Amino acid sequence: MKVAILGYGTVGSGVFDVLTENRDIIAKRVGFPLDVKYVLDLREFPGKPVEKYLTHDFRQIIEDPEIEIIVEVMGGIHPSYEYAKEALESGRSVCTSNKELVAKHGAELVGIAKDHSVNFLFEASVGGGIPVIRQLIRSITADEVEEVCGILNGTTNYMMTLMRETGATFEEALTDAQDKGFAERNPAADIEGHDACRKIAILTSLAYAKQVDYEDIYTEGIVSISDIDVAYAKAMKRGIKLLGRSYLKDGTVYAMVAPCMVRKKNPLYPVNGVYNAIMIRGNMLGDVVCYGMGAGKLPTASAVVSDVIDAAKHRHVNIPILWEKEKLVLGAKDDMDGKFFVRVAFADADKARALFPIAKEISILECEGREFAFVTEVMSEKAFSDAAEKIAVINRIRYEI
Amino acid sequence: MKVAILGYGTVGSGVFDVLTENRDIIAKRVGFPLDVKYVLDLREFPGKPVEKYLTHDFRQIIEDPEIEIIVEVMGGIHPSYEYAKEALESGRSVCTSNKELVAKHGAELVGIAKDHSVNFLFEASVGGGIPVIRQLIRSITADEVEEVCGILNGTTNYMMTLMRETGATFEEALTDAQDKGFAERNPAADIEGHDACRKIAILTSLAYAKQVDYEDIYTEGIVSISDIDVAYAKAMKRGIKLLGRSYLKDGTVYAMVAPCMVRKKNPLYPVNGVYNAIMIRGNMLGDVVCYGMGAGKLPTASAVVSDVIDAAKHRHVNIPILWEKEKLVLGAKDDMDGKFFVRVAFADADKARALFPIAKEISILECEGREFAFVTEVMSEKAFSDAAEKIAVINRIRYEI
Repeated sequence: MKVAILGYGTVGSGVFDVLTENRDIIAKRVGFPLDVKYVLDLREFPGKPVEKYLTHDFRQIIEDPEIEIIVEVMGGIHPSYEYAKEALESGRSVCTSNKELVAKHGAELVGIAKDHSVNFLFEASVGGGIPVIRQLIRSITADEVEEVCGILNGTTNYMMTLMRETGATFEEALTDAQDKGFAERNPAADIEGHDACRKIAILTSLAYAKQVDYEDIYTEGIVSISDIDVAYAKAMKRGIKLLGRSYLKDGTVYAMVAPCMVRKKNPLYPVNGVYNAIMIRGNMLGDVVCYGMGAGKLPTASAVVSDVIDAAKHRHVNIPILWEKEKLVLGAKDDMDGKFFVRVAFADADKARALFPIAKEISILECEGREFAFVTEVMSEKAFSDAAEKIAVINRIRYEI
Repeated sequence: MKVAILGYGTVGSGVFDVLTENRDIIAKRVGFPLDVKYVLDLREFPGKPVEKYLTHDFRQIIEDPEIEIIVEVMGGIHPSYEYAKEALESGRSVCTSNKELVAKHGAELVGIAKDHSVNFLFEASVGGGIPVIRQLIRSITADEVEEVCGILNGTTNYMMTLMRETGATFEEALTDAQDKGFAERNPAADIEGHDACRKIAILTSLAYAKQVDYEDIYTEGIVSISDIDVAYAKAMKRGIKLLGRSYLKDGTVYAMVAPCMVRKKNPLYPVNGVYNAIMIRGNMLGDVVCYGMGAGKLPTASAVVSDVIDAAKHRHVNIPILWEKEKLVLGAKDDMDGKFFVRVAFADADKARALFPIAKEISILECEGREFAFVTEVMSEKAFSDAAEKIAVINRIRYEI
C-alpha cells in the first residue's frame, strides 16, 4: 500500500524514518508492506534518501490512484484543510498531527471520512506519542467521562520544571527552552496557552462527542508566573503546572486552561521536563493517567504511523469516531469553583482579609514584610474576580483543592 | 444484543452494574443497546436485581441463539477454558478478566476466535482498568517493543507502600491488606509473585506475538522483604517495587518478576497503594507509562465492558491479535545483567568486598555494627549467585541501574 507524506519538517521526516526503519515489523502487523511513494515539500533535499520521493505538486499525489493513505504534517490550516478534505473525498484516509486543523475542522473531517468509508485519524495531535485519543474513543468506552485533565504542552512544562529546579526566572527559562529547541522563536502559542487550549478542545470534543470550539475555552498561559510564585509553590510543597482541564458537573461541561498549584499527591505532580501527561476520569473506571514524550520527532511520528497502520488495516472501513458538528455549549467560567493562591502588597493584608475567605496564609523569606500571600477557601471564579477587582493583586494562581 | 455473564463474583457483579448503569451511553457508542440476558452462578441471590437473570446451567446459555457475547469472569482454568472454547466455536465473542486462562490458553483462544470470525478479548486480565492490552496491540503498533515493565499487582504494592510509609513489618502489612480486603486469606498468588508473573507473560506474549509460558519466567515475590530492607531503600532515596519486566536485547527476550529498588526518577516510583502502572518502551516512541486502579470491582468491570463494546461493534469481524502458539524461548536468567543491593553480617564485610564488585556501601542506624550492606556494580545474575553462594547473605534485592 502506498503512502504520501505532506510536509517534510520535523514530524514529516520522522514519519518517513519510522516507516522506513520499522518497515518489516509494520508489514507483519498490517499484513502487507506500507511504502512511501511521495513526500510533498517546497524545498529540495539533494543527496538525502527522501530526494527520490519528493514532489512539489499536491495534484500529482491526489491524481495517483495508487495512493491510499495521506499523512498531513504540514501544520497550519491552509492548505492543510483543503488537502485533507479533498483527500478524504477522493477516498483516501488521512492521518495528521495537526492540532489546529483537528480542533477547527475535526468534526467535519470525521464526518467526511465516514461518508466515504475511509478514516480521518489524529492520534498525534494531542500528547505526541501518548496514545490518549485512542484511549478516549476506543478504550474508555464503558464509562461516562467525568474529567479530563492534562499537562498538554511540553515546552511550558519544561520551563516550569527548570524554574522549579534551578530558581531560574521566566525569561531565563524561556531563553533556555529556545536554545534547546523546545520553544519556538515566537513562543506565544506555547506560553500563552493556545497550544494546550486546542488540545483540551479536541479531548473534550471526543469525551462528549460534540464540537467544542477552542475560542470558548478560557485560556491563561504561564507568562505571569515568576520565580517568586515558584518559590511560594515550593514552600507549600506544590508544583505549578499548566493544566488543560474539562469536567462534567450537573450535566454541564466546563473547560479551562490555566496554571495551577497541584498537590504532591497529584499524579501530574511528578511529570517534569518536556513530558506530557493526561488523566481521564471515568464514572466506573476511576482515574487513568498516561504519560510520555508529548512532542519530539520520533514519538510524534510513531503516533502518526500507528494511525497509518490503523488506516491500512481498515481499508474502505470507517472506524467510528463520535464527534458531531453540533456545538457543545460550555458552562460559564464565572460558575467554575476553585481555590486561589493570591499575593498582594503587605500593606493590603487587612483589606485582603476582609475581601477573601482565607484558608491559610503563607510567607516566604524573599517576600517577608513586603507581600501578604494566602490561599482562599473554595469560591467561584466570579466571586474571586469581584473581590480581586477591589485590591491590587500582584499575582494569583489557581490552587488544587 | 444479548450478553451472558459467567460468574457473579466481584468482577461479574461489577460488569452487571456497569452494563446497567451506563446502558444509555453504551447504547449510543455501540449503536444499539447491550442487555444482560443470563448470569451464570451456582448461588442464588434472592431479592437482588440479578435474580431474574440467574441460571445455574451453562447449556441454557450456549443453546440460546440470542446470546452473542459471553463474559467469562469466573476465574480459574476449569471450566472457564472449556466454556470459552465452546462459546467461541459456536460463534460467540468471549470477554474475560481471567489472567490464568489468558496466560495459559490465550494463543489458542485468540486463534479459535479468528477462525470463527468472532473475538476473544481480555483487556481486564492485566492492569485492571488500565487499558494496557489495547495500548500494546492497537496503539503502539509502529514500534518494536524494547521493554515492558510494570507494577502489576496492587496487593503487594499496597503492602510495600504501607511498609514504606508506616515502618510496618511484612506481617503487619499483610494483615492490614487482608483486613482491608486487598489480599486474600491465602495470599500466595500475590506475595509470591505468581499473579504478576502471569500478567507479564501475557504482556510479553503480545509484545512479541508469540507464546510466553509463565513457567519459564523467573519469579520472586516480596516474601523476603523486611522493614529493614525498606529502611535501607529509604536511606538510599529509593522505593522497593515488585516489578514484572521483559525486554529485548540482541534479538533475545528476557523476563523476570522480582522486587527492585527503583530510583526516585523512575516513573514507577510514585505509584503507590493499590495502583498499578505499566511502562512500555518503543524503539521510536520512547517510554509511555500508564497508571490507574489495577484492581477493584468497577475499574476491572469497566475494562471488561469496554471489551464487550468492542465485540458488539465487531459483530462477525475478528479484531486481529498477533499471538502465535509458537513458543517464545526466553533468554536464560543467568545472562541477565543488573545491580544488586546486598546485606551480610558485619563480620563478613571483608569477605564480601573480596567477592563482589562493590559500587557503594550503605549503613543505617538500625543495623550499624551488625550488618554490612552494599550495592554491587552491574554484574550478571550468574556472577552474582556464584559469589552469593560463598557467603551468608541476609537478603539481596535487585537495584535499578
